[in-house]
Amino acid sequence: MMISGTTKIFYMLAHPIAHVRTPEVINPVFAARGIDAVMVPVHFSPEDFAMGWEALKRTRNLGGIVVSVPHKEQACALSDEVDRAAEELGAANVIRRDPDGRMIATNMDGLGFLRGMLNGGRDAEGRDVLLVGAGGAGKAIAFGLAKSGSKSIRISDADPERAEVLAADVKNRYPDQAVTAGSPNLDGIDMLVNATPCGLHPETDPLPVDVAELRPDILVADIIMKPRETPLLQAATARGCEVRYGAGMLDSQIELMVSYFGY
Amino acid sequence: MMISGTTKIFYMLAHPIAHVRTPEVINPVFAARGIDAVMVPVHFSPEDFAMGWEALKRTRNLGGIVVSVPHKEQACALSDEVDRAAEELGAANVIRRDPDGRMIATNMDGLGFLRGMLNGGRDAEGRDVLLVGAGGAGKAIAFGLAKSGSKSIRISDADPERAEVLAADVKNRYPDQAVTAGSPNLDGIDMLVNATPCGLHPETDPLPVDVAELRPDILVADIIMKPRETPLLQAATARGCEVRYGAGMLDSQIELMVSYFGY
Repeated sequence: MMISGTTKIFYMLAHPIAHVRTPEVINPVFAARGIDAVMVPVHFSPEDFAMGWEALKRTRNLGGIVVSVPHKEQACALSDEVDRAAEELGAANVIRRDPDGRMIATNMDGLGFLRGMLNGGRDAEGRDVLLVGAGGAGKAIAFGLAKSGSKSIRISDADPERAEVLAADVKNRYPDQAVTAGSPNLDGIDMLVNATPCGLHPETDPLPVDVAELRPDILVADIIMKPRETPLLQAATARGCEVRYGAGMLDSQIELMVSYFGY
Repeated sequence: MMISGTTKIFYMLAHPIAHVRTPEVINPVFAARGIDAVMVPVHFSPEDFAMGWEALKRTRNLGGIVVSVPHKEQACALSDEVDRAAEELGAANVIRRDPDGRMIATNMDGLGFLRGMLNGGRDAEGRDVLLVGAGGAGKAIAFGLAKSGSKSIRISDADPERAEVLAADVKNRYPDQAVTAGSPNLDGIDMLVNATPCGLHPETDPLPVDVAELRPDILVADIIMKPRETPLLQAATARGCEVRYGAGMLDSQIELMVSYFGY
Protein backbone atom coordinates (compact mmCIF):
# COMPACT_ATOMS: atom_id res chain seq x y z
CA MET A 1 0.00 0.00 0.00
CA MET A 2 1.53 3.30 -1.10
CA ILE A 3 0.05 6.37 0.57
CA SER A 4 0.55 9.47 -1.54
CA GLY A 5 -0.94 12.91 -1.88
CA THR A 6 -3.73 11.52 -4.07
CA THR A 7 -4.78 8.83 -1.59
CA LYS A 8 -8.36 9.01 -0.41
CA ILE A 9 -8.60 8.97 3.38
CA PHE A 10 -11.06 6.95 5.46
CA TYR A 11 -11.31 7.30 9.22
CA MET A 12 -12.29 4.66 11.74
CA LEU A 13 -13.64 6.32 14.88
CA ALA A 14 -14.01 4.55 18.20
CA HIS A 15 -13.40 5.04 21.90
CA PRO A 16 -11.31 3.27 23.02
CA ILE A 17 -9.48 2.61 19.78
CA ALA A 18 -6.81 -0.07 20.29
CA HIS A 19 -9.16 -3.01 19.67
CA VAL A 20 -10.66 -1.87 16.35
CA ARG A 21 -10.10 -4.23 13.45
CA THR A 22 -11.69 -2.56 10.44
CA PRO A 23 -8.49 -0.83 9.21
CA GLU A 24 -6.44 -4.00 9.18
CA VAL A 25 -9.18 -5.86 7.32
CA ILE A 26 -10.21 -3.21 4.79
CA ASN A 27 -6.76 -1.87 3.87
CA PRO A 28 -5.60 -5.15 2.29
CA VAL A 29 -8.86 -5.14 0.28
CA PHE A 30 -8.12 -1.62 -0.98
CA ALA A 31 -4.57 -2.68 -1.84
CA ALA A 32 -5.56 -5.93 -3.55
CA ARG A 33 -8.00 -4.09 -5.80
CA GLY A 34 -5.63 -1.23 -6.63
CA ILE A 35 -7.85 1.30 -4.85
CA ASP A 36 -5.87 4.41 -3.88
CA ALA A 37 -7.36 4.67 -0.39
CA VAL A 38 -6.37 4.04 3.22
CA MET A 39 -8.27 3.74 6.49
CA VAL A 40 -6.70 4.93 9.73
CA PRO A 41 -7.97 4.66 13.31
CA VAL A 42 -8.80 8.00 14.94
CA HIS A 43 -9.40 8.24 18.65
CA PHE A 44 -11.71 11.00 19.85
CA SER A 45 -13.16 11.10 23.33
CA PRO A 46 -16.98 11.21 23.23
CA GLU A 47 -16.96 14.85 24.35
CA ASP A 48 -14.71 15.75 21.40
CA PHE A 49 -16.72 13.81 18.84
CA ALA A 50 -19.00 16.58 17.59
CA MET A 51 -16.10 18.97 17.06
CA GLY A 52 -14.03 16.21 15.49
CA TRP A 53 -16.84 15.31 13.12
CA GLU A 54 -17.25 18.88 11.92
CA ALA A 55 -13.55 19.06 11.13
CA LEU A 56 -13.26 15.60 9.61
CA LYS A 57 -16.15 16.21 7.24
CA ARG A 58 -14.30 19.26 5.90
CA THR A 59 -11.37 17.06 4.97
CA ARG A 60 -11.52 17.47 1.21
CA ASN A 61 -9.77 14.17 0.47
CA LEU A 62 -12.02 12.26 2.86
CA GLY A 63 -13.79 9.29 1.34
CA GLY A 64 -15.81 8.25 4.35
CA ILE A 65 -15.94 7.27 7.99
CA VAL A 66 -16.58 4.02 9.81
CA VAL A 67 -17.87 4.51 13.33
CA SER A 68 -17.86 2.16 16.28
CA VAL A 69 -18.87 2.36 19.94
CA PRO A 70 -19.73 4.81 21.48
CA HIS A 71 -20.03 7.23 18.57
CA LYS A 72 -22.74 5.65 16.39
CA GLU A 73 -25.68 7.66 17.72
CA GLN A 74 -23.80 10.96 17.41
CA ALA A 75 -22.69 10.01 13.90
CA CYS A 76 -26.29 9.37 12.91
CA ALA A 77 -27.46 12.66 14.39
CA LEU A 78 -24.67 14.63 12.71
CA SER A 79 -24.97 13.08 9.24
CA ASP A 80 -26.60 15.06 6.47
CA GLU A 81 -28.61 12.12 5.20
CA VAL A 82 -29.47 8.75 6.73
CA ASP A 83 -31.05 5.72 5.13
CA ARG A 84 -33.79 3.56 6.64
CA ALA A 85 -31.42 1.16 8.39
CA ALA A 86 -29.66 3.98 10.23
CA GLU A 87 -32.87 5.89 10.91
CA GLU A 88 -34.55 2.79 12.38
CA LEU A 89 -31.69 2.36 14.84
CA GLY A 90 -30.88 6.00 15.43
CA ALA A 91 -27.29 4.97 14.85
CA ALA A 92 -24.90 4.98 11.91
CA ASN A 93 -21.73 2.99 11.45
CA VAL A 94 -20.76 3.63 7.83
CA ILE A 95 -20.82 7.10 6.32
CA ARG A 96 -19.59 8.18 2.93
CA ARG A 97 -18.64 11.71 2.02
CA ASP A 98 -20.17 12.76 -1.24
CA PRO A 99 -18.20 15.09 -3.52
CA ASP A 100 -20.33 18.03 -2.38
CA GLY A 101 -19.20 17.40 1.22
CA ARG A 102 -22.47 15.87 2.45
CA MET A 103 -22.20 12.93 4.82
CA ILE A 104 -24.47 10.04 3.84
CA ALA A 105 -25.02 7.45 6.55
CA THR A 106 -26.16 3.88 6.85
CA ASN A 107 -25.98 1.13 9.45
CA MET A 108 -24.65 -2.25 8.38
CA ASP A 109 -24.54 -3.88 11.82
CA GLY A 110 -27.78 -5.81 11.51
CA LEU A 111 -27.06 -7.02 8.00
CA GLY A 112 -23.45 -7.77 8.89
CA PHE A 113 -24.56 -9.80 11.90
CA LEU A 114 -27.02 -11.87 9.90
CA ARG A 115 -24.70 -12.39 6.94
CA GLY A 116 -21.51 -12.96 8.84
CA MET A 117 -22.66 -14.93 11.87
CA LEU A 118 -26.05 -16.51 11.11
CA ASN A 119 -25.95 -17.63 7.48
CA GLY A 120 -27.89 -14.66 6.29
CA GLY A 121 -30.33 -15.04 9.19
CA ARG A 122 -31.44 -18.61 8.47
CA ASP A 123 -29.80 -19.87 11.68
CA ALA A 124 -32.07 -17.63 13.75
CA GLU A 125 -35.33 -18.91 12.23
CA GLY A 126 -37.54 -20.53 14.85
CA ARG A 127 -35.05 -19.93 17.66
CA ASP A 128 -35.77 -18.69 21.14
CA VAL A 129 -33.09 -16.11 21.57
CA LEU A 130 -31.60 -14.39 24.59
CA LEU A 131 -29.96 -11.17 23.50
CA VAL A 132 -27.72 -9.63 26.17
CA GLY A 133 -26.97 -5.97 25.60
CA ALA A 134 -29.43 -3.37 24.36
CA GLY A 135 -26.87 -0.77 23.27
CA GLY A 136 -26.11 0.18 19.70
CA ALA A 137 -25.07 -3.26 18.50
CA GLY A 138 -27.80 -5.00 20.48
CA LYS A 139 -30.37 -2.78 18.88
CA ALA A 140 -29.16 -3.59 15.37
CA ILE A 141 -29.14 -7.29 16.24
CA ALA A 142 -32.64 -7.23 17.76
CA PHE A 143 -34.08 -5.77 14.58
CA GLY A 144 -32.04 -8.23 12.52
CA LEU A 145 -33.37 -11.19 14.53
CA ALA A 146 -36.94 -9.98 14.17
CA LYS A 147 -36.50 -9.72 10.40
CA SER A 148 -35.08 -13.26 10.34
CA GLY A 149 -38.14 -14.86 11.92
CA SER A 150 -36.79 -15.88 15.29
CA LYS A 151 -39.49 -17.55 17.44
CA SER A 152 -38.94 -15.29 20.42
CA ILE A 153 -36.46 -12.69 21.60
CA ARG A 154 -35.75 -11.92 25.23
CA ILE A 155 -33.63 -8.79 25.67
CA SER A 156 -31.56 -8.27 28.79
CA ASP A 157 -29.45 -5.30 29.77
CA ALA A 158 -27.72 -4.04 32.89
CA ASP A 159 -30.07 -1.10 32.49
CA PRO A 160 -33.53 -2.77 32.53
CA GLU A 161 -35.23 0.30 31.14
CA ARG A 162 -32.98 0.25 28.11
CA ALA A 163 -34.02 -3.35 27.45
CA GLU A 164 -37.71 -2.42 27.86
CA VAL A 165 -37.41 0.45 25.44
CA LEU A 166 -35.71 -1.70 22.82
CA ALA A 167 -38.24 -4.54 23.22
CA ALA A 168 -41.11 -2.09 22.78
CA ASP A 169 -39.42 -0.53 19.78
CA VAL A 170 -38.96 -3.89 18.03
CA LYS A 171 -42.52 -4.94 18.93
CA ASN A 172 -43.78 -1.69 17.51
CA ARG A 173 -42.21 -2.32 14.14
CA TYR A 174 -42.64 -6.10 14.10
CA PRO A 175 -45.99 -6.68 15.90
CA ASP A 176 -45.96 -10.44 15.19
CA GLN A 177 -42.58 -10.96 16.86
CA ALA A 178 -42.61 -12.35 20.43
CA VAL A 179 -40.22 -9.95 22.11
CA THR A 180 -39.79 -9.23 25.80
CA ALA A 181 -37.33 -7.64 28.16
CA GLY A 182 -36.10 -9.82 30.98
CA SER A 183 -33.32 -11.40 32.94
CA PRO A 184 -30.13 -12.87 31.43
CA ASN A 185 -30.84 -16.42 32.61
CA LEU A 186 -30.69 -19.18 30.01
CA ASP A 187 -34.05 -20.80 30.73
CA GLY A 188 -36.00 -21.80 27.64
CA ILE A 189 -33.63 -20.42 25.06
CA ASP A 190 -31.67 -22.16 22.34
CA MET A 191 -29.66 -19.22 21.13
CA LEU A 192 -27.57 -16.66 23.02
CA VAL A 193 -26.14 -13.49 21.57
CA ASN A 194 -23.70 -11.34 23.50
CA ALA A 195 -23.96 -7.74 22.35
CA THR A 196 -22.32 -6.21 25.42
CA PRO A 197 -18.68 -5.14 25.57
CA CYS A 198 -18.04 -7.78 28.26
CA GLY A 199 -15.10 -9.79 27.00
CA LEU A 200 -13.15 -6.96 25.39
CA HIS A 201 -10.94 -7.04 28.48
CA PRO A 202 -10.98 -10.74 29.36
CA GLU A 203 -8.93 -10.31 32.52
CA THR A 204 -11.27 -7.86 34.18
CA ASP A 205 -14.68 -7.96 32.47
CA PRO A 206 -17.51 -9.90 34.11
CA LEU A 207 -19.14 -12.61 31.97
CA PRO A 208 -22.37 -11.46 30.27
CA VAL A 209 -24.29 -14.52 31.53
CA ASP A 210 -23.80 -17.31 34.06
CA VAL A 211 -21.91 -19.79 31.88
CA ALA A 212 -22.70 -22.64 34.29
CA GLU A 213 -26.20 -22.59 32.77
CA LEU A 214 -24.96 -23.21 29.20
CA ARG A 215 -26.42 -26.32 27.54
CA PRO A 216 -25.11 -27.94 24.33
CA ASP A 217 -28.29 -27.11 22.40
CA ILE A 218 -27.64 -23.39 22.74
CA LEU A 219 -26.03 -21.65 19.77
CA VAL A 220 -23.73 -18.97 21.24
CA ALA A 221 -22.72 -15.88 19.25
CA ASP A 222 -20.44 -13.17 20.57
CA ILE A 223 -20.02 -9.95 18.60
CA ILE A 224 -16.67 -9.11 20.20
CA MET A 225 -13.96 -9.29 17.58
CA LYS A 226 -10.84 -8.97 19.68
CA PRO A 227 -10.05 -11.26 21.36
CA ARG A 228 -11.52 -13.80 18.97
CA GLU A 229 -11.97 -16.37 21.76
CA THR A 230 -13.79 -14.46 24.47
CA PRO A 231 -14.24 -16.08 27.89
CA LEU A 232 -17.91 -16.60 26.96
CA LEU A 233 -17.06 -18.46 23.76
CA GLN A 234 -14.38 -20.48 25.52
CA ALA A 235 -16.90 -21.58 28.13
CA ALA A 236 -19.50 -22.32 25.45
CA THR A 237 -17.07 -24.45 23.46
CA ALA A 238 -16.08 -26.29 26.62
CA ARG A 239 -19.75 -27.08 27.25
CA GLY A 240 -20.33 -28.39 23.74
CA CYS A 241 -22.18 -25.43 22.28
CA GLU A 242 -21.89 -24.37 18.67
CA VAL A 243 -20.28 -20.92 18.64
CA ARG A 244 -20.10 -17.97 16.23
CA TYR A 245 -17.27 -15.44 16.24
CA GLY A 246 -17.60 -11.66 16.12
CA ALA A 247 -15.06 -11.37 13.31
CA GLY A 248 -17.67 -12.73 10.92
CA MET A 249 -19.80 -9.66 11.54
CA LEU A 250 -16.96 -7.41 10.41
CA ASP A 251 -15.76 -9.54 7.52
CA SER A 252 -19.19 -9.60 5.97
CA GLN A 253 -19.46 -5.83 6.30
CA ILE A 254 -16.15 -5.11 4.56
CA GLU A 255 -17.52 -5.97 1.12
CA LEU A 256 -20.61 -3.90 1.81
CA MET A 257 -18.48 -0.96 2.96
CA VAL A 258 -16.13 -0.96 -0.02
CA SER A 259 -19.13 -0.99 -2.31
CA TYR A 260 -20.92 1.74 -0.29
CA PHE A 261 -17.80 3.89 -0.62
CA GLY A 262 -18.18 3.68 -4.39
CA TYR A 263 -15.49 1.18 -5.34
CA MET B 1 2.78 -1.69 6.77
CA MET B 2 -0.08 -3.00 8.89
CA ILE B 3 -2.43 -0.32 10.22
CA SER B 4 -4.22 -1.49 13.36
CA GLY B 5 -6.03 0.06 16.29
CA THR B 6 -2.73 0.66 18.07
CA THR B 7 -1.14 2.53 15.17
CA LYS B 8 -0.03 6.07 15.93
CA ILE B 9 -1.41 8.55 13.41
CA PHE B 10 0.49 11.39 11.75
CA TYR B 11 -1.18 13.92 9.49
CA MET B 12 0.31 15.78 6.56
CA LEU B 13 -1.61 19.00 5.97
CA ALA B 14 -1.39 21.01 2.78
CA HIS B 15 -3.58 22.85 0.28
CA PRO B 16 -3.65 21.61 -2.41
CA ILE B 17 -2.71 18.11 -1.33
CA ALA B 18 -2.12 15.91 -4.38
CA HIS B 19 1.54 16.90 -4.80
CA VAL B 20 2.73 16.24 -1.24
CA ARG B 21 5.46 13.64 -0.92
CA THR B 22 6.15 13.33 2.81
CA PRO B 23 3.77 10.39 3.42
CA GLU B 24 5.25 8.25 0.69
CA VAL B 25 8.77 8.95 1.92
CA ILE B 26 8.24 8.66 5.68
CA ASN B 27 5.91 5.62 5.74
CA PRO B 28 8.54 3.23 4.36
CA VAL B 29 10.92 4.54 7.04
CA PHE B 30 8.35 3.79 9.74
CA ALA B 31 7.81 0.32 8.26
CA ALA B 32 11.50 -0.47 7.84
CA ARG B 33 12.14 0.36 11.48
CA GLY B 34 9.13 -1.51 12.83
CA ILE B 35 7.51 1.71 14.05
CA ASP B 36 3.74 1.28 14.49
CA ALA B 37 2.85 4.59 12.85
CA VAL B 38 1.41 5.91 9.61
CA MET B 39 1.22 9.32 7.96
CA VAL B 40 -1.77 10.26 5.84
CA PRO B 41 -2.40 13.37 3.73
CA VAL B 42 -5.25 15.55 4.98
CA HIS B 43 -6.66 18.30 2.83
CA PHE B 44 -8.17 21.29 4.62
CA SER B 45 -8.96 24.54 2.88
CA PRO B 46 -7.18 27.47 4.57
CA GLU B 47 -10.48 28.73 6.01
CA ASP B 48 -11.05 25.35 7.66
CA PHE B 49 -7.55 25.04 9.03
CA ALA B 50 -8.08 26.51 12.49
CA MET B 51 -11.12 24.34 13.14
CA GLY B 52 -9.34 21.34 11.69
CA TRP B 53 -6.33 21.93 13.90
CA GLU B 54 -8.42 22.10 17.07
CA ALA B 55 -10.03 18.78 16.22
CA LEU B 56 -6.87 17.05 15.05
CA LYS B 57 -4.98 17.96 18.21
CA ARG B 58 -7.70 16.23 20.23
CA THR B 59 -7.03 13.01 18.34
CA ARG B 60 -5.75 10.91 21.21
CA ASN B 61 -3.73 8.55 19.03
CA LEU B 62 -2.13 11.44 17.13
CA GLY B 63 1.66 11.41 17.08
CA GLY B 64 2.22 14.63 15.20
CA ILE B 65 1.56 16.78 12.17
CA VAL B 66 3.65 17.85 9.20
CA VAL B 67 2.45 21.06 7.62
CA SER B 68 3.08 22.46 4.17
CA VAL B 69 1.94 25.49 2.20
CA PRO B 70 -0.18 27.50 2.97
CA HIS B 71 -0.74 26.38 6.55
CA LYS B 72 2.69 26.90 8.17
CA GLU B 73 2.00 30.31 9.68
CA GLN B 74 -1.33 29.21 11.14
CA ALA B 75 0.28 26.07 12.52
CA CYS B 76 2.93 28.18 14.25
CA ALA B 77 0.34 30.52 15.72
CA LEU B 78 -1.86 27.66 16.94
CA SER B 79 0.90 25.54 18.48
CA ASP B 80 1.27 25.46 22.25
CA GLU B 81 5.04 25.77 22.14
CA VAL B 82 7.46 26.82 19.38
CA ASP B 83 11.22 26.58 19.27
CA ARG B 84 13.59 29.28 17.99
CA ALA B 85 13.60 28.06 14.39
CA ALA B 86 9.82 28.30 14.15
CA GLU B 87 9.60 31.53 16.12
CA GLU B 88 12.22 33.22 13.89
CA LEU B 89 10.18 32.38 10.81
CA GLY B 90 6.72 32.72 12.31
CA ALA B 91 6.04 29.39 10.64
CA ALA B 92 6.06 25.76 11.71
CA ASN B 93 6.27 22.66 9.53
CA VAL B 94 6.77 19.83 12.02
CA ILE B 95 4.70 19.53 15.18
CA ARG B 96 4.66 16.71 17.64
CA ARG B 97 1.83 16.00 20.04
CA ASP B 98 3.09 15.39 23.54
CA PRO B 99 1.22 12.86 25.71
CA ASP B 100 -0.49 15.71 27.57
CA GLY B 101 -1.99 16.92 24.28
CA ARG B 102 0.26 19.94 23.82
CA MET B 103 1.45 20.68 20.30
CA ILE B 104 5.21 21.37 20.14
CA ALA B 105 6.38 23.01 16.93
CA THR B 106 9.57 23.50 15.01
CA ASN B 107 10.57 24.48 11.49
CA MET B 108 12.98 22.22 9.63
CA ASP B 109 12.79 23.94 6.23
CA GLY B 110 15.98 25.97 6.56
CA LEU B 111 18.01 23.09 7.92
CA GLY B 112 16.47 20.68 5.41
CA PHE B 113 17.34 23.03 2.55
CA LEU B 114 20.96 23.39 3.64
CA ARG B 115 21.46 19.71 4.40
CA GLY B 116 19.58 18.28 1.50
CA MET B 117 20.43 20.69 -1.32
CA LEU B 118 23.58 22.60 -0.40
CA ASN B 119 25.90 20.14 1.35
CA GLY B 120 25.03 21.44 4.77
CA GLY B 121 25.31 25.03 3.52
CA ARG B 122 28.90 24.86 2.25
CA ASP B 123 27.77 25.30 -1.36
CA ALA B 124 26.29 28.70 -0.50
CA GLU B 125 29.47 30.11 1.05
CA GLY B 126 30.74 33.12 -0.84
CA ARG B 127 27.94 32.99 -3.39
CA ASP B 128 25.90 35.85 -4.74
CA VAL B 129 22.41 34.46 -4.51
CA LEU B 130 19.14 35.41 -6.12
CA LEU B 131 16.28 34.03 -4.07
CA VAL B 132 12.93 34.15 -5.86
CA GLY B 133 9.96 33.83 -3.53
CA ALA B 134 9.65 35.44 -0.12
CA GLY B 135 6.86 33.22 1.18
CA GLY B 136 7.20 30.63 3.90
CA ALA B 137 9.85 28.51 2.21
CA GLY B 138 11.69 31.55 0.90
CA LYS B 139 11.88 32.96 4.38
CA ALA B 140 13.36 29.76 5.79
CA ILE B 141 15.86 29.65 2.93
CA ALA B 142 16.86 33.30 3.32
CA PHE B 143 17.73 32.73 6.97
CA GLY B 144 19.50 29.49 6.07
CA LEU B 145 21.61 31.24 3.41
CA ALA B 146 22.53 34.02 5.83
CA LYS B 147 23.68 31.45 8.38
CA SER B 148 25.75 29.71 5.71
CA GLY B 149 27.82 32.78 4.88
CA SER B 150 26.59 33.59 1.40
CA LYS B 151 28.31 36.70 -0.01
CA SER B 152 25.08 38.45 -0.90
CA ILE B 153 21.40 37.68 -1.11
CA ARG B 154 18.95 39.44 -3.40
CA ILE B 155 15.34 38.58 -2.65
CA SER B 156 12.66 38.95 -5.28
CA ASP B 157 8.95 38.40 -5.01
CA ALA B 158 5.88 39.13 -7.08
CA ASP B 159 4.88 41.21 -4.08
CA PRO B 160 7.83 43.65 -3.74
CA GLU B 161 6.84 44.66 -0.24
CA ARG B 162 7.03 41.06 0.94
CA ALA B 163 10.60 40.87 -0.42
CA GLU B 164 11.48 44.14 1.34
CA VAL B 165 10.10 42.94 4.65
CA LEU B 166 12.02 39.67 4.45
CA ALA B 167 15.27 41.40 3.45
CA ALA B 168 14.94 43.78 6.38
CA ASP B 169 14.14 40.91 8.71
CA VAL B 170 17.23 38.93 7.70
CA LYS B 171 19.40 42.08 7.85
CA ASN B 172 18.09 42.77 11.32
CA ARG B 173 19.17 39.37 12.62
CA TYR B 174 22.33 39.07 10.50
CA PRO B 175 23.66 42.65 10.26
CA ASP B 176 26.85 41.59 8.44
CA GLN B 177 24.95 39.86 5.63
CA ALA B 178 24.57 41.79 2.36
CA VAL B 179 20.87 41.36 1.72
CA THR B 180 18.60 43.37 -0.54
CA ALA B 181 15.22 43.17 -2.18
CA GLY B 182 15.16 43.54 -5.93
CA SER B 183 14.25 42.29 -9.35
CA PRO B 184 14.46 38.66 -10.45
CA ASN B 185 17.07 39.33 -13.16
CA LEU B 186 20.20 37.17 -13.12
CA ASP B 187 22.78 39.96 -13.27
CA GLY B 188 25.77 39.44 -11.00
CA ILE B 189 24.59 36.26 -9.33
CA ASP B 190 26.11 32.79 -9.33
CA MET B 191 23.35 31.00 -7.48
CA LEU B 192 19.59 30.95 -8.04
CA VAL B 193 17.03 29.49 -5.69
CA ASN B 194 13.40 29.12 -6.68
CA ALA B 195 11.22 29.23 -3.60
CA THR B 196 7.98 30.07 -5.43
CA PRO B 197 5.33 27.50 -6.33
CA CYS B 198 5.98 28.19 -10.04
CA GLY B 199 6.64 24.80 -11.58
CA LEU B 200 4.15 22.78 -9.56
CA HIS B 201 1.89 22.93 -12.60
CA PRO B 202 4.41 22.87 -15.44
CA GLU B 203 1.80 23.27 -18.16
CA THR B 204 0.35 26.50 -16.87
CA ASP B 205 2.77 28.09 -14.38
CA PRO B 206 4.98 30.97 -15.53
CA LEU B 207 8.73 30.48 -15.07
CA PRO B 208 10.08 32.17 -11.91
CA VAL B 209 12.87 33.91 -13.89
CA ASP B 210 13.76 34.58 -17.51
CA VAL B 211 15.65 31.37 -18.29
CA ALA B 212 17.26 32.96 -21.36
CA GLU B 213 19.53 34.78 -18.88
CA LEU B 214 20.86 31.56 -17.32
CA ARG B 215 24.66 31.16 -17.49
CA PRO B 216 26.60 27.92 -16.82
CA ASP B 217 28.27 29.39 -13.72
CA ILE B 218 24.91 29.70 -11.93
CA LEU B 219 24.03 26.94 -9.48
CA VAL B 220 20.25 26.50 -9.78
CA ALA B 221 18.20 25.04 -6.93
CA ASP B 222 14.43 24.49 -7.08
CA ILE B 223 12.56 23.53 -3.95
CA ILE B 224 9.64 22.02 -5.89
CA MET B 225 9.55 18.30 -5.29
CA LYS B 226 6.93 17.20 -7.78
CA PRO B 227 7.63 17.21 -10.65
CA ARG B 228 11.28 16.50 -9.98
CA GLU B 229 12.34 18.12 -13.26
CA THR B 230 10.63 21.48 -13.22
CA PRO B 231 10.71 23.62 -16.35
CA LEU B 232 13.27 25.83 -14.56
CA LEU B 233 15.61 22.92 -13.85
CA GLN B 234 15.14 21.57 -17.37
CA ALA B 235 16.16 24.93 -18.82
CA ALA B 236 19.09 25.19 -16.39
CA THR B 237 20.37 21.75 -17.31
CA ALA B 238 20.03 22.57 -20.99
CA ARG B 239 22.15 25.67 -20.43
CA GLY B 240 24.90 23.79 -18.60
CA CYS B 241 24.07 24.85 -15.05
CA GLU B 242 24.59 22.60 -12.05
CA VAL B 243 21.15 21.91 -10.56
CA ARG B 244 19.76 20.82 -7.21
CA TYR B 245 16.42 19.05 -6.79
CA GLY B 246 13.73 19.84 -4.25
CA ALA B 247 13.42 16.22 -3.18
CA GLY B 248 16.72 16.58 -1.33
CA MET B 249 15.11 19.13 0.97
CA LEU B 250 12.47 16.61 1.99
CA ASP B 251 14.73 13.57 2.18
CA SER B 252 17.05 15.30 4.60
CA GLN B 253 14.12 16.32 6.78
CA ILE B 254 12.68 12.82 7.08
CA GLU B 255 15.40 11.65 9.46
CA LEU B 256 15.00 14.83 11.48
CA MET B 257 11.22 14.35 11.63
CA VAL B 258 11.31 10.73 12.73
CA SER B 259 13.69 11.66 15.49
CA TYR B 260 11.62 14.72 16.49
CA PHE B 261 8.58 12.45 16.76
CA GLY B 262 10.45 10.45 19.38
CA TYR B 263 11.49 7.34 17.41
